[in-house]
Amino acid sequence: MRAVVYHGPGQKAWEEVPQPEVVEDTDAIVRVDAVTICGTDLHILKGDVPTVTPGRILGHEAVGTVEAVGSGVKTRQPGDRVLVSCITACGSCRFCRDGSYGQCIGGGGWILGHKIDGTQAEYVRVPFADTSTHLQPEGVSDEQLLMLADILPTGYEVGVLNGHVQPGDVVAVVGAGPIGLSVMMGARLYSPSHVVAIDLADNRLDAAKQFGADVVVNNGREDALAVVRDLTGGLGADVSVEAVGVPATFELAAALARPGGHIANVGVHGEPAQLHLEELWIKNLTITTGLVDTYSTPTLLRLAQGHQVDVDRFVTHHFPLDQFEQAYDVFSRAGETGALKVVLTRS
Amino acid sequence: MRAVVYHGPGQKAWEEVPQPEVVEDTDAIVRVDAVTICGTDLHILKGDVPTVTPGRILGHEAVGTVEAVGSGVKTRQPGDRVLVSCITACGSCRFCRDGSYGQCIGGGGWILGHKIDGTQAEYVRVPFADTSTHLQPEGVSDEQLLMLADILPTGYEVGVLNGHVQPGDVVAVVGAGPIGLSVMMGARLYSPSHVVAIDLADNRLDAAKQFGADVVVNNGREDALAVVRDLTGGLGADVSVEAVGVPATFELAAALARPGGHIANVGVHGEPAQLHLEELWIKNLTITTGLVDTYSTPTLLRLAQGHQVDVDRFVTHHFPLDQFEQAYDVFSRAGETGALKVVLTRS
Amino acid sequence: MRAVVYHGPGQKAWEEVPQPEVVEDTDAIVRVDAVTICGTDLHILKGDVPTVTPGRILGHEAVGTVEAVGSGVKTRQPGDRVLVSCITACGSCRFCRDGSYGQCIGGGGWILGHKIDGTQAEYVRVPFADTSTHLQPEGVSDEQLLMLADILPTGYEVGVLNGHVQPGDVVAVVGAGPIGLSVMMGARLYSPSHVVAIDLADNRLDAAKQFGADVVVNNGREDALAVVRDLTGGLGADVSVEAVGVPATFELAAALARPGGHIANVGVHGEPAQLHLEELWIKNLTITTGLVDTYSTPTLLRLAQGHQVDVDRFVTHHFPLDQFEQAYDVFSRAGETGALKVVLTRS
Amino acid sequence: MRAVVYHGPGQKAWEEVPQPEVVEDTDAIVRVDAVTICGTDLHILKGDVPTVTPGRILGHEAVGTVEAVGSGVKTRQPGDRVLVSCITACGSCRFCRDGSYGQCIGGGGWILGHKIDGTQAEYVRVPFADTSTHLQPEGVSDEQLLMLADILPTGYEVGVLNGHVQPGDVVAVVGAGPIGLSVMMGARLYSPSHVVAIDLADNRLDAAKQFGADVVVNNGREDALAVVRDLTGGLGADVSVEAVGVPATFELAAALARPGGHIANVGVHGEPAQLHLEELWIKNLTITTGLVDTYSTPTLLRLAQGHQVDVDRFVTHHFPLDQFEQAYDVFSRAGETGALKVVLTRS
Repeated sequence: MRAVVYHGPGQKAWEEVPQPEVVEDTDAIVRVDAVTICGTDLHILKGDVPTVTPGRILGHEAVGTVEAVGSGVKTRQPGDRVLVSCITACGSCRFCRDGSYGQCIGGGGWILGHKIDGTQAEYVRVPFADTSTHLQPEGVSDEQLLMLADILPTGYEVGVLNGHVQPGDVVAVVGAGPIGLSVMMGARLYSPSHVVAIDLADNRLDAAKQFGADVVVNNGREDALAVVRDLTGGLGADVSVEAVGVPATFELAAALARPGGHIANVGVHGEPAQLHLEELWIKNLTITTGLVDTYSTPTLLRLAQGHQVDVDRFVTHHFPLDQFEQAYDVFSRAGETGALKVVLTRS
Repeated sequence: MRAVVYHGPGQKAWEEVPQPEVVEDTDAIVRVDAVTICGTDLHILKGDVPTVTPGRILGHEAVGTVEAVGSGVKTRQPGDRVLVSCITACGSCRFCRDGSYGQCIGGGGWILGHKIDGTQAEYVRVPFADTSTHLQPEGVSDEQLLMLADILPTGYEVGVLNGHVQPGDVVAVVGAGPIGLSVMMGARLYSPSHVVAIDLADNRLDAAKQFGADVVVNNGREDALAVVRDLTGGLGADVSVEAVGVPATFELAAALARPGGHIANVGVHGEPAQLHLEELWIKNLTITTGLVDTYSTPTLLRLAQGHQVDVDRFVTHHFPLDQFEQAYDVFSRAGETGALKVVLTRS
Repeated sequence: MRAVVYHGPGQKAWEEVPQPEVVEDTDAIVRVDAVTICGTDLHILKGDVPTVTPGRILGHEAVGTVEAVGSGVKTRQPGDRVLVSCITACGSCRFCRDGSYGQCIGGGGWILGHKIDGTQAEYVRVPFADTSTHLQPEGVSDEQLLMLADILPTGYEVGVLNGHVQPGDVVAVVGAGPIGLSVMMGARLYSPSHVVAIDLADNRLDAAKQFGADVVVNNGREDALAVVRDLTGGLGADVSVEAVGVPATFELAAALARPGGHIANVGVHGEPAQLHLEELWIKNLTITTGLVDTYSTPTLLRLAQGHQVDVDRFVTHHFPLDQFEQAYDVFSRAGETGALKVVLTRS
Repeated sequence: MRAVVYHGPGQKAWEEVPQPEVVEDTDAIVRVDAVTICGTDLHILKGDVPTVTPGRILGHEAVGTVEAVGSGVKTRQPGDRVLVSCITACGSCRFCRDGSYGQCIGGGGWILGHKIDGTQAEYVRVPFADTSTHLQPEGVSDEQLLMLADILPTGYEVGVLNGHVQPGDVVAVVGAGPIGLSVMMGARLYSPSHVVAIDLADNRLDAAKQFGADVVVNNGREDALAVVRDLTGGLGADVSVEAVGVPATFELAAALARPGGHIANVGVHGEPAQLHLEELWIKNLTITTGLVDTYSTPTLLRLAQGHQVDVDRFVTHHFPLDQFEQAYDVFSRAGETGALKVVLTRS
């Protein structure tokens, strides 16, 4: 079969590799029918994630068809159409028993396309298949389902639920890339009063309006703090979300929150930020960080089925499965191409 | 009457001043029967709190007797013996309606000995007396009650409750001064498995054992991270509390928490700390900050009444009310004198 | 002035009475500009609420203009346009400090039109005006505001928030009268998958579709339990709400909930219901009861201001203030007239 | 091997039966080293649990040694000393993923000694062994561990945690049999102000004092409602727990709770109770029911290891494994024998 293989910083190829087989009895082999590329894959390609070693097949999001299962797989069988979640869950460690699958210490967590071969391939081996895949519900297309592999649960769990968005809240989201847009879409499920999108790029702010933002701020030209304070009688946002991953945006998010407010970090960071405790110690703030756990996937499946989250909106480009080169190119030049999520499908 | 008056950095005096009177109809005038000194008063005297201006009477903790009330005071009357809380609550602003009295925007918050004259005096004017004082319950002495003005609710709310301490938890407290000890005493109410006290001074660690710590770490000589990891199968503390107020202790507290854990900042900070988001973004952490609200005071009063919190343990030194000079001296040299809380009482 | 005076079971009159005056210094006198009738007023008129004695002016919902305030009122002044909440809050008792205003033991709770004279009058005395009225926000009409005096917070707090409605839930509401409709409208703020309305009257079920129900069941002809089980893979509703107030509907609501589900009682009951503990003991259910506290009114004001709750939809009939006889007649024959809320306004 | 076999109402025998074998690959065969009898076993013997059919081996609590495991068992191996939990968890159904193991719809729940053969035997087959057993921690004896199979997690989860016991609370427990005592022991972990034990038998009330009750009421002679109201300024208990299982005790528990309080049903009921909604609808109560899930077992293991729960106190009688007849006799005459838990151990 063919797969996208990482060959060290800056190097990858869609090349022939051996087909995966059941190794552990809890494995499933899934034929990949639809797959996408994550911003994290671009980080890996830059060499930012040294735990990914050359020879690794990339990708941690897929929709596919179960081809084979080990004897320990109880609830999936060949022919099942499934969502392969970005997070693998052993199901029995202390973290999995708490629903913290992202922190699994029983062999799961974020392993696909990271510690084991991933989904950007014709077939993928999925460990702990009972607790790491979800059956495709009726009325949800492959493409829609694929958006629930990573981006939507990440925005919803790490942004919206960690941020404790409630009806009537003012929610400020710093960063209107795909993950920030996902936070905005998820926040709308809780009927906030205002969703404020903050970004440096006008085209991303235009997109934000489609994903639930009713106020947009280009903080290259405008003072986001002033806008949010105007909107909140000088107090600040009830919930402020960091969806970029650099110190400046975290510090902005921290400054935007009102006394008693929540600051939810969603961005993936490569260096420390300043935490202005000399101002924040007195403000009764709650700051959260997190890798997605995907405990919300069953909820999001129901909402997708009822068209209560418009996941189609994320998909801007389509490719056949063998055009990974083109797909990576378009996705990596999102500023020019306007790409949010690119989908590759088996023809 | 006489009072401790601040005259600019490094300068204070126990001197004659006019007796306070009812100004607003919700005021009470309280005769001070027992009063103490807070670490914050020492900060003010160093000039670290510029919102305190020369001429201000210091102090925000007292037990006393109501002498007079304004016409708008409904539930207190002359002769009532009361605890004067460090936090004043208007009772009707959006924050007070949520129990966030510390964030009151209706004229309260931390104002005593800060924005208005305080309790280190023979008499004090207490605004919003109905919602800012508590009646002395039977069986609780003045001295015991006084520990509920600030130190015990601060440790309990900002450390224990914000940190979400639960039965069976491992709780690490960085800093074994009075406020860290208060966190330890409060944490024991929730039956944690272990309370680990971390400090640089052996005498403070000895005190910690009296306040509920069962493991003590002198992090001048020992590796606190290693001790906590040994105790937790390598994972880290369920709850980690910062009770000092400098960047290094915050950064230690942040490093001590397990994935999914809580970091509660209690210390008062004067400069930013580094937040190592490059390590913490993925760990599902919850970091809280906060000024005490004193919403827990009624609960703590019941616990003090039932001798379930041993508040007497805080009081190391006693003085008559006119010996503020000596009391400040002993309290400010706590390293030598072993002072935790000093109490001054009207004879 | 004139007012609706209760003269014992079955008897009331719109008659001349003395104008109210400030009695306590925390009182406001409010000129009534818009007022409505509650189902509870009909109960009183039937003699079901013996704590209402003859001579009492009825009514606990109003929008008006502050005419006069006592010296203890700090944040309201003559000329202010205000919502008079159905619940009066002293602001300082243990329940008010917890936001449980409905349980106020400091002289508030549900007192208007019950223990003291109410709002169905040209003027009304409102105790504890600072904590028992809300300023009219810009962009919210009198009529819209009036729906926040009782019906909307009741459905939202006692039904939706007590029931812990979450995105993706299946919510079953037994009873599609005004209060059940209010629950449905409030539930939609949390993006449930399905809102199932259950009633015996087809016209009420038609109304339910306008208020957020996507599934309607006439349980005179259909088996509500079967419909809900079909919708939920046999499990039952995540949240089930009783909005009628008789034993049979409570027992239906209890039977509708899934294992681990919530049953929120909103109805006002006059007799005991059977609690089938022989079936329910094992099901991990949470059953809640409650009088509205109106702690959510500030949130609902923001949502009304942003047109996120369509409160106009409740108002089916309009009358001038002196046509209370006609308004009561129309409202009491809701089955025929289709009345939800009738509004009387000062011309 | 020998086992206690149910032969229909009133009939059981310690008799020879075939030794269990691995059937599903997730099974473990456990040699029973210590086992106890539950009140539920007595119910079964009375014929009250028709889902238990003749021929069934009884018992759902054991400590033992793993003899054999199926190929799908990943984290247990022969020789492991384990606690066999009363609840079996498939680990992957929607309820198990939420920690609601008692509601497992994947083949678990309460099945041992109920739907499949149980633990009152020399060997027992334990399905889903990875998620249904716990490794014995160092320093916890077999007998101590055995108390965590059912009784302690039941009292803690269904009574204390569902009842939301908090520091300073007044907790009333109706019923001082083993399960009520377990609630009292668990409640003390949260430092309530008072634990009130209510029962008809003085010897049970004497036991209650050993398990954490500081107030005892014989409600054959005393008015429990009056005692609790005296203790709470007339308001009622913060938390009231039903630990008997008959209508009268549920109705008493419901009456004991204060406005805004919690009523936790722990008793197993055979018939409906009256729910006095005509009084309770207005009181903002939360009533919970539940079968134990055993999600708290890891926490309780840590607390037992640290001697923070004194589980030895439950064990009143010891027998060798082949004296089940005598053990059942002593346990079933608890009123005379004072039996709380009887332990049978392999010699």
